[in-house]
Amino acid sequence: MNVEIVTIGDELLLGFTIDTNAAHLARELAAIGVAIVRRSTCGDGADDIASAVREALDRTGAVITTGGLGPTSDDLTKPSIAAIFGRAMRLDEAILENLKGRWKARGWPGDMPIANRQQAMIPDGATVLANRHGSAPGIWLDDDAGRWVAMLPGVPREMRGMCADVLLPRVRERLGANTTVIASRTLRTTGVAESALPELLGPLASGFDGLSLAYLPGWDGVDLRLTCRGHMAAEATAMLDKGVAAMRERLGATVYGNGSDDLAALVLQLLRDRQMTIVVAESCTGGMLGARLTAIPGSSDVVLGGVIAYANEVKETQLGVRAATLATYGAVSEETAREMASGARSRFNADVAVAVTGIAGPDGGTPEKPVGTICIAVDVQGAVRSVRPAVVGDRDEIRRRSAQAALSLVRRMLVHPSETP
Amino acid sequence: MNVEIVTIGDELLLGFTIDTNAAHLARELAAIGVAIVRRSTCGDGADDIASAVREALDRTGAVITTGGLGPTSDDLTKPSIAAIFGRAMRLDEAILENLKGRWKARGWPGDMPIANRQQAMIPDGATVLANRHGSAPGIWLDDDAGRWVAMLPGVPREMRGMCADVLLPRVRERLGANTTVIASRTLRTTGVAESALPELLGPLASGFDGLSLAYLPGWDGVDLRLTCRGHMAAEATAMLDKGVAAMRERLGATVYGNGSDDLAALVLQLLRDRQMTIVVAESCTGGMLGARLTAIPGSSDVVLGGVIAYANEVKETQLGVRAATLATYGAVSEETAREMASGARSRFNADVAVAVTGIAGPDGGTPEKPVGTICIAVDVQGAVRSVRPAVVGDRDEIRRRSAQAALSLVRRMLVHPSETP
Repeated sequence: MNVEIVTIGDELLLGFTIDTNAAHLARELAAIGVAIVRRSTCGDGADDIASAVREALDRTGAVITTGGLGPTSDDLTKPSIAAIFGRAMRLDEAILENLKGRWKARGWPGDMPIANRQQAMIPDGATVLANRHGSAPGIWLDDDAGRWVAMLPGVPREMRGMCADVLLPRVRERLGANTTVIASRTLRTTGVAESALPELLGPLASGFDGLSLAYLPGWDGVDLRLTCRGHMAAEATAMLDKGVAAMRERLGATVYGNGSDDLAALVLQLLRDRQMTIVVAESCTGGMLGARLTAIPGSSDVVLGGVIAYANEVKETQLGVRAATLATYGAVSEETAREMASGARSRFNADVAVAVTGIAGPDGGTPEKPVGTICIAVDVQGAVRSVRPAVVGDRDEIRRRSAQAALSLVRRMLVHPSETP
Repeated sequence: MNVEIVTIGDELLLGFTIDTNAAHLARELAAIGVAIVRRSTCGDGADDIASAVREALDRTGAVITTGGLGPTSDDLTKPSIAAIFGRAMRLDEAILENLKGRWKARGWPGDMPIANRQQAMIPDGATVLANRHGSAPGIWLDDDAGRWVAMLPGVPREMRGMCADVLLPRVRERLGANTTVIASRTLRTTGVAESALPELLGPLASGFDGLSLAYLPGWDGVDLRLTCRGHMAAEATAMLDKGVAAMRERLGATVYGNGSDDLAALVLQLLRDRQMTIVVAESCTGGMLGARLTAIPGSSDVVLGGVIAYANEVKETQLGVRAATLATYGAVSEETAREMASGARSRFNADVAVAVTGIAGPDGGTPEKPVGTICIAVDVQGAVRSVRPAVVGDRDEIRRRSAQAALSLVRRMLVHPSETP
């Protein structure tokens, strides 16, 4: 079954509101085997709604709309779509009574405004979709040719509730048994460029064994998502399990997690398993690494704290970096990073310390040490390793990527203690 | 001028990624008088792209696309749209050289993978839109009938940069003079609940003098957006200037900035103007406050660094908080916050220190000190002030709001030194 989504509202079209409804609907529908083939957003005008929905119906015969069901004069979804199906509008007494009841229950003064009656108008032959989460009911309209439109409210909380309560069960019923699903699995990698991954993946690079492969680069690395389409749920799971195993074998330690795993949370758990504590020593990241580790609930049994050593003086006085090291190698050097890590570890009496120093830009770069030069050192109970990855992007990305690279080095030292840097 | 936006990507269609590009483009274009009349999202397939863009072109003759310009095999935007215009693809040597240069500059090993050459292929007769923010250039394709498509990359940071650098100037040129605009101005407030703002605003609360007013709550406070529609640019500017002045008069010190002003950047400038240095002492925010201050380019002349004092022991050993204070008042108390601030200021020899300690949850709350209890202290050259704001939200929101409240206290002490807390 192919479905289109039409989200309705001037606010969406003008960009004042970010459309999260369409993404939510798409995920929920994919999980039961419905493919969303197009999404559109149109304004509140009757003609805009009518043409967007008519075109979508012509393409797929199945459309879900959100928005334009409220009591105000710019809520024209129902009459516009009724016209496409050649239906008149009629007053639904049950909805009207329900609205009046809600009005009274809230203790609002006087009678319900006449404008609210509009919410009780529905197209002839439509099915009312109950809304436990708000005042505007949804509408299901179909015809003998099997074409249908489901109209849901635009308020995300109401839309999500109704999607689960009434939309998905109805669509599932239409699908019958024997439906295939769209299922995905994601592997998270870091430290390898997007363009270098195909070579690492070799024959798997463009998808394999009926699975498609997407490369999703972000500041925290490149996610690899395997997607399986057109198979029954159990079969899809087996195919994805096999696909994930094949990818992991190729990629080795480059993969740090699955799905939306956070590297900071994984590192925290590795430390907890080993009953180790950690401290940070941050120059260019300025607290970002500490913020990531402490973002995780319950981090206080592992994270002691750390030093933000932004000024060189602070690197000396608070971390014990030697003046000679700073003078000889500079603040951005593996030597300084190593002394920062070891200094932090001993001063805080921690098992592990991770240090970052670098040039996040936009200023401060030199031909020898351009913007994006980052030095990272990790001290695990006296064993120190350091790296100098090339990091690209603007200031914010360089800082985020530096923190991610620092966490990655901690992980590798814990998981592969004998690996050479 | 009517324009449609087509955002391209399976990711968007499947709902794995929320589409923020379309909203950004719509806002930016509205500001120069361009109406977005429809937005669509289609998948990565060549046919999907071709039909979505062709239909949009048929409706408006002017289309902006995002996505599908990368180096991988699922990036088919350029050839699909070239086919609509009946153009062949050709290799652009200048782009290729640029890509090779980028590859080398990053210090990646070996030659650039062959896959990257695809990014240098452009439709015949197309104009290359320079991308200072990433590797994939944008493309502008038009024909003798005046129809045009602008293709931008899907990575939001790159798309936004290119929108400002090259797209808006080009579209503005096409528009000519005599167009009305939709113009907005935003005032940023913090420390006042959304529901309390209408009372403060009085007669201005629901918009005034032809301006509409929107309340936009976020973790960093409530933004107030004034919007003016249907006037020429100069007139709209005058109306908004007047409106902003009226709002500022009502709201006083509650307003800390305009537009997208960052409170951390404003605080940094206030300190710089006074030639003061600052350090942080962070418990529950775990580095977030330091990260916000150091996110601003050039912060190193003001920010010395700080201590992340997550464990109580660290509060004692690294900041000199007295054991008796921790025992009597607890780690989450104004007393502890004050000693953290003063300890940090003297140990780092700074002019200003800001300390945050609190319970970010989800665990650790007590009836007396529930989750969301936050204590903040600021020491400005020996004058110490502390507050205990009630902060709501999940762990992440509580931490963000705590950092914002801490910056707000620094700002108030610098701008209104005689104010009582």
